[in-house]
Amino acid sequence: MAFNDTFLRACRKQPVEHIPVWYMRQAGRYQPEYRKVREKYSLMEICEIPDVCAEVTILPVKQLNTDAAILFSDIMIPVKAMGVDVDIKGGYGPVIANPIKEMADVTRLRELDPEGDLPKTMETIRILKRELEVPLIGFAGAPFTLASYMIEGGPSKNYYKTKQMMYSAPEVWNALMDKLGDMIITYMKGQVAAGAQAVQIFDSWIGSLSPSDYRQYVFPTMKRIFEALKEIDAPTIYFGINTGELLTVWKELPVSVIGVDWRVPLDSARERVGTGFALQGNLDPALLLAPWPVIEQKAKEILDMGMAHPGYIFNLGHGIFPEVQGETLRKLTEFVHQYSVSKLK
Amino acid sequence: MAFNDTFLRACRKQPVEHIPVWYMRQAGRYQPEYRKVREKYSLMEICEIPDVCAEVTILPVKQLNTDAAILFSDIMIPVKAMGVDVDIKGGYGPVIANPIKEMADVTRLRELDPEGDLPKTMETIRILKRELEVPLIGFAGAPFTLASYMIEGGPSKNYYKTKQMMYSAPEVWNALMDKLGDMIITYMKGQVAAGAQAVQIFDSWIGSLSPSDYRQYVFPTMKRIFEALKEIDAPTIYFGINTGELLTVWKELPVSVIGVDWRVPLDSARERVGTGFALQGNLDPALLLAPWPVIEQKAKEILDMGMAHPGYIFNLGHGIFPEVQGETLRKLTEFVHQYSVSKLK
Repeated sequence: MAFNDTFLRACRKQPVEHIPVWYMRQAGRYQPEYRKVREKYSLMEICEIPDVCAEVTILPVKQLNTDAAILFSDIMIPVKAMGVDVDIKGGYGPVIANPIKEMADVTRLRELDPEGDLPKTMETIRILKRELEVPLIGFAGAPFTLASYMIEGGPSKNYYKTKQMMYSAPEVWNALMDKLGDMIITYMKGQVAAGAQAVQIFDSWIGSLSPSDYRQYVFPTMKRIFEALKEIDAPTIYFGINTGELLTVWKELPVSVIGVDWRVPLDSARERVGTGFALQGNLDPALLLAPWPVIEQKAKEILDMGMAHPGYIFNLGHGIFPEVQGETLRKLTEFVHQYSVSKLK
Repeated sequence: MAFNDTFLRACRKQPVEHIPVWYMRQAGRYQPEYRKVREKYSLMEICEIPDVCAEVTILPVKQLNTDAAILFSDIMIPVKAMGVDVDIKGGYGPVIANPIKEMADVTRLRELDPEGDLPKTMETIRILKRELEVPLIGFAGAPFTLASYMIEGGPSKNYYKTKQMMYSAPEVWNALMDKLGDMIITYMKGQVAAGAQAVQIFDSWIGSLSPSDYRQYVFPTMKRIFEALKEIDAPTIYFGINTGELLTVWKELPVSVIGVDWRVPLDSARERVGTGFALQGNLDPALLLAPWPVIEQKAKEILDMGMAHPGYIFNLGHGIFPEVQGETLRKLTEFVHQYSVSKLK
């Protein structure tokens, strides 16, 4: 079978025969096979065993027929390599034993050397590069989202401590953004050198900021990251939830693809960012529990909006959750492929 | 001292001498006096003792010099009166022993008779009507937000069960929306008859819906509620968080005031809803932990946007949280009053 580069072409707004599809958290607890692997290994352990990690990454591509794979990993893995004491508590999230409180905590963070610090991740990417017949998406968490865990000490609802540092100790905040920015640039370059063909920066919690706070406290770092990543031959994707208002600032970022959550209709997103970017999204993952005719109708509406301009990748508006049936996702991929082929003819 | 009706005039887009201020959750754990009351009584118990409940409602008006009071209560109180087994777990939220699963659970819900079912709430409003020198805002939870607790059985992150019922059992969903709509209309009319001079409908979690789902599954009920409330001589306010994209649908609702969360700049909100409504909001409550110059700068930016059209009420973009200092809020009220007086001259 020939290598399927549809996803990469869509990222670059080049012509495609069908709309490419992948799903955030396409390797996960909704799969019986994944749950079986997790009986044996923790999430962190999977990431330390390249064969298993590659297998977990490949499985959903085979099962769902997606047009891209995404490296199975966790956004906190490089943070741990920077010297932060991180543990992932299943069903809860990352827990940090030594949260960032002051400048000394930031100064102490080590620089990341992807090959030296994360050899197993790099080895996994090399295996995947050999075995996959679709592009591999590498990824990292974005500085704000990583910082929120590092400062709060774990998942948070309102990010009060994070914002308090941002507002009250801007010099500590900026130093932290700088260090995380450096790490992300190095890590993404390392992943691409090892074989990743695109990278997604997950800024899951960035939507808790107003546009003016985003511009002041986060935008300079994001701009620096995407500027630096222009050097690599791999499209970049930026995604977060609740980002509708931030899109007016994101449009100034030199990123290839903007990921849109389910709240923002794709035509509104287009209005806000213009036609300079590819768009990715944005079916509400909750819809995956709906009867098939409801899913199909919503997918159709989204596809019609997404396909109005070159450069569109079908995805969910957020990650798959455990209650979802794999069969629903397989059927959805098939529907998106068939519907878009007929429309693109 | 004369009755201060500035808030009501702002709701009606009439001329004001200063911009009125109140704060969501202005009676709460950030106050040492409130914490002391809570040592003695649970939240639900406070609502059952009119003298104490009135005192708790009045205290922040005196301390912070706000231009409105909001009835101290909980959105689940009328739901309990409908026959749902609700308990409020401090620091967590409502817990429901018998969640709504099928039509029989909806059919079982009783109609609300405010005076018969909630005499203590009505009595509290009558005390407040006599004692307050500012308008009293009555309130209710909106159908989607109430339904989310009733279906999930408690607070939720992603509302999957709620949405599953919405998508998969629309007849049960619509019956539930109808019953909750009736309850809210009756309850708000009862509160106004007892002395409330405005009402706010809290749809805190509605921002989890896409605009097209909102239009299909929730809008008809909200329209019916606000149509019915046009009969009463009291401005209506509609508020939720993450509602930026919903504003394009909300603009079709016959509501007086639209509450805006901190993510949506007030000028963007104006663009989306037009000048037919008063706006209320929207300082990020997290900013209350910032140094004063940062707070003042952001408040100024918000005031400048809000005052660009008649009909503006200063508030936070969400409720006050326990770590906030009362002194910060007092100073903020003073600043908003002084700054707006000078601008409105």
